[in-house]
Amino acid sequence: MKRTVIPGRFQPFHLGHLHAVKWLLNRCDELIIAVCSAQKSHTLENPFTAGERILMIRETLRKEGVDPWRIMIAPVQDIEYNSIWVCYLESILPPFDSAASRNPLVIRLFKERGYSILQPPLTRREEYSGVRIRRMMLEGDDDWKKLVPEPVVEVIEHIGGVERLRELAKTDEVIRG
Amino acid sequence: MKRTVIPGRFQPFHLGHLHAVKWLLNRCDELIIAVCSAQKSHTLENPFTAGERILMIRETLRKEGVDPWRIMIAPVQDIEYNSIWVCYLESILPPFDSAASRNPLVIRLFKERGYSILQPPLTRREEYSGVRIRRMMLEGDDDWKKLVPEPVVEVIEHIGGVERLRELAKTDEVIRG
Amino acid sequence: MKRTVIPGRFQPFHLGHLHAVKWLLNRCDELIIAVCSAQKSHTLENPFTAGERILMIRETLRKEGVDPWRIMIAPVQDIEYNSIWVCYLESILPPFDSAASRNPLVIRLFKERGYSILQPPLTRREEYSGVRIRRMMLEGDDDWKKLVPEPVVEVIEHIGGVERLRELAKTDEVIRG
Amino acid sequence: MKRTVIPGRFQPFHLGHLHAVKWLLNRCDELIIAVCSAQKSHTLENPFTAGERILMIRETLRKEGVDPWRIMIAPVQDIEYNSIWVCYLESILPPFDSAASRNPLVIRLFKERGYSILQPPLTRREEYSGVRIRRMMLEGDDDWKKLVPEPVVEVIEHIGGVERLRELAKTDEVIRG
Amino acid sequence: MKRTVIPGRFQPFHLGHLHAVKWLLNRCDELIIAVCSAQKSHTLENPFTAGERILMIRETLRKEGVDPWRIMIAPVQDIEYNSIWVCYLESILPPFDSAASRNPLVIRLFKERGYSILQPPLTRREEYSGVRIRRMMLEGDDDWKKLVPEPVVEVIEHIGGVERLRELAKTDEVIRG
Amino acid sequence: MKRTVIPGRFQPFHLGHLHAVKWLLNRCDELIIAVCSAQKSHTLENPFTAGERILMIRETLRKEGVDPWRIMIAPVQDIEYNSIWVCYLESILPPFDSAASRNPLVIRLFKERGYSILQPPLTRREEYSGVRIRRMMLEGDDDWKKLVPEPVVEVIEHIGGVERLRELAKTDEVIRG
Repeated sequence: MKRTVIPGRFQPFHLGHLHAVKWLLNRCDELIIAVCSAQKSHTLENPFTAGERILMIRETLRKEGVDPWRIMIAPVQDIEYNSIWVCYLESILPPFDSAASRNPLVIRLFKERGYSILQPPLTRREEYSGVRIRRMMLEGDDDWKKLVPEPVVEVIEHIGGVERLRELAKTDEVIRG
Repeated sequence: MKRTVIPGRFQPFHLGHLHAVKWLLNRCDELIIAVCSAQKSHTLENPFTAGERILMIRETLRKEGVDPWRIMIAPVQDIEYNSIWVCYLESILPPFDSAASRNPLVIRLFKERGYSILQPPLTRREEYSGVRIRRMMLEGDDDWKKLVPEPVVEVIEHIGGVERLRELAKTDEVIRG
Repeated sequence: MKRTVIPGRFQPFHLGHLHAVKWLLNRCDELIIAVCSAQKSHTLENPFTAGERILMIRETLRKEGVDPWRIMIAPVQDIEYNSIWVCYLESILPPFDSAASRNPLVIRLFKERGYSILQPPLTRREEYSGVRIRRMMLEGDDDWKKLVPEPVVEVIEHIGGVERLRELAKTDEVIRG
Repeated sequence: MKRTVIPGRFQPFHLGHLHAVKWLLNRCDELIIAVCSAQKSHTLENPFTAGERILMIRETLRKEGVDPWRIMIAPVQDIEYNSIWVCYLESILPPFDSAASRNPLVIRLFKERGYSILQPPLTRREEYSGVRIRRMMLEGDDDWKKLVPEPVVEVIEHIGGVERLRELAKTDEVIRG
Repeated sequence: MKRTVIPGRFQPFHLGHLHAVKWLLNRCDELIIAVCSAQKSHTLENPFTAGERILMIRETLRKEGVDPWRIMIAPVQDIEYNSIWVCYLESILPPFDSAASRNPLVIRLFKERGYSILQPPLTRREEYSGVRIRRMMLEGDDDWKKLVPEPVVEVIEHIGGVERLRELAKTDEVIRG
Repeated sequence: MKRTVIPGRFQPFHLGHLHAVKWLLNRCDELIIAVCSAQKSHTLENPFTAGERILMIRETLRKEGVDPWRIMIAPVQDIEYNSIWVCYLESILPPFDSAASRNPLVIRLFKERGYSILQPPLTRREEYSGVRIRRMMLEGDDDWKKLVPEPVVEVIEHIGGVERLRELAKTDEVIRG
């Protein structure tokens, strides 16, 4: 039994993430999707709560017909302590034997603990990017909807996600200053 | 769509918990099993890690033939701050409209935030008890295996859980004293 | 200008506390009432939130005709680090030159940082006791209302405080076990 | 009874803040001034401790003849967890029904929890700005004293606040590098 | 090169600890003495600060003529997270290949991470016990001085340690109640 | 007896640090080297763990023939709370009467608590700089080895420190985005 963990922030979960998940499901038996920075939300970099992101991922994988016993989605709060982060994942997640990432820090931390690394290939990388999608939302460009799975569009519309992002971008901060 | 959250420590997940889960699945569409005190393990009260407990629950529900899209299992660390604990759950879990518990604190906290409460009936309460099961493990009484689902026995045996509990119970603490 | 700090949990604020406050106001210019363990609530030992406790104290002192510019009431969260606790108070409160307490730990910590200590005399100590008042609430003995200032009774009744305490005392914990 | 909370860092409390407080006191019965980032001090962005900032605000409002029973000033430490921040304020402050802010994040967070928002009008916004006042202090421009209430000048001079800020701005960091 | 870590609270460092240290120095090249619960002090169980405990150990080993390059003494704060505690030690201490302890939890945690365990033999265990020494201090029995190395007596007398412990044992807690 | 504390991150410990240590040992009896930001590692700014940094310093001072009873090296985690940071150092370190630093924040914090400050002179400051050494490592310029003591080179080579830094600098972050 091969179990892989894929850590990410998924702000939001987009088609690049979905392709990575599918690619990984062809290479392992079970996949743990770790929704990192679970405590972060309501910022331009991290607009959605962990609960909202988990819902996006679940509904997408359900619609895609993925075997649900082969995936697990878990919220993971930051601990701000790189050298013990992998041990922390080991403690809150079922045992895994490899990790999937293209993030250099993540790769290095898993390697130093002896894990093998899976690097999903990039799919239309310039388009499938959280930074780009959030920017499109801010600028009123509705084409972001083509870059995420349909259920993600539904979740974001249901929670008023684009409106939230735009409100957060307003810069009148006289009180705080 | 009705979604319920059932918070618990599940040290370990036993037949009482399983009955509660089945009872709840007859009353809601989706059930979030919140594995609380996720940071705790290796004590007499909390011998198993969150990852181990999640594995116990997953394998049990898989074997029971539960529809996996109707359940979600998530590790939840303690925040030691009762009055905001429900808000904390709201942030890391998909939205829920009711909570299942027989714990007075849990019930009170959800009620004060306006949630309705589901109280699963007790099934052979004296037997199906985490305290009792852990005590049987300590005392070498193998009948604890009759009080938990088969997959839980397998996980505990695989990780050497009974041996762990017994080692932790030794009381020679000269160095720490 | 002499400013004194009186740290306490005030669960709830009772007549013994009120006498201590008045005694202190005769001996200093300003009094900072530090509402400690601000993060704790909804337990048998700490039933009320910091916000509720602050309201009790404010309304009591308002009714007593205390000069409001001579008092300040502040929520103070625990830091679980005794040897720096006084420095922590120094950072979040206006400067003070003495501390009022009968608690040996509190007295010792302030003394080691060079503060002088004021020890308000005990007034009907067996009666004016948080432990006793909470026990009376649990046991349905309405005489607790004679042991706290009237505005405290009003706050507790308004928030359903007695009902909260009684619900928390129920001991059926099958789910958590 | 209408009670409003106004969260801010007040580094330092300036005339813009004072105008906002007065405007709010014309629209509610009581005002809670939440001194946020209470754990921060001794940086260029946050030079003053929470205790120092509370003192500035108290002395200003005392001098302005504000009714002290209509205001409350409380230190509030950051929790770095946006989606539960409002619940956190609810737990440590007396109950409030609206919030005053021009900060988009603060406004959004209160709105999502169902609070109404009061937006005090801007008064000479370019001048009354914490950023600007701190810059003037650094540059030796004593006109910052015209932008804050007199008691704030006194507190800052008493604690050597301008000297502190200037010392912190020195950039010789060979040891840390 | 064999390096061993010995974790303990050392409240205070007594002759049993000293014997263990010497026994270990005969079996490894370097010994890291981890002064745990570094954040705790001023309680009956943990009267001394980490700084005070480190001083006790340093002065004792200096007087005993131990080769200082073969030992290292480090303060270690609790993390309250058993399953990652060993990883945490790995991050803040130089690399070690074994651990010395008679504490069942410590032994188990190191074993699960693959470390070998050294168990120093017990020396006059009933006498050399932190619990017993602290009780003797409380009861005014000066024979505790025979159970700790001379430099430990000197440190404790210098800081007024016995007086601190006795003050902390007073039980008049009317203000906190 | 004069004991001084020198706080630093030592990422890595370089010849400038070594000169400062020697200069200080000529002016005090004992020197505590506080390895700050102990929880940080595996970033471009903070590549090495506290354990690795302690090892670098120990091996350097051993080779330099420094009297080991005159130095102490301790890991110190950040608390992100400037105004109580000195109290925190007081609690985990043996008592000290002065602090050595050229960092304005550090100097200010110690001064406000009444400590005297020692400012070691700068030695070839442009060269002996952590920022510069880390940049040289990244750029493949082996001359960094001339800027740190030989034992530091050995530790860094033993742990693959340069390779770690270079891997962390890769910028392909598609999964995290």
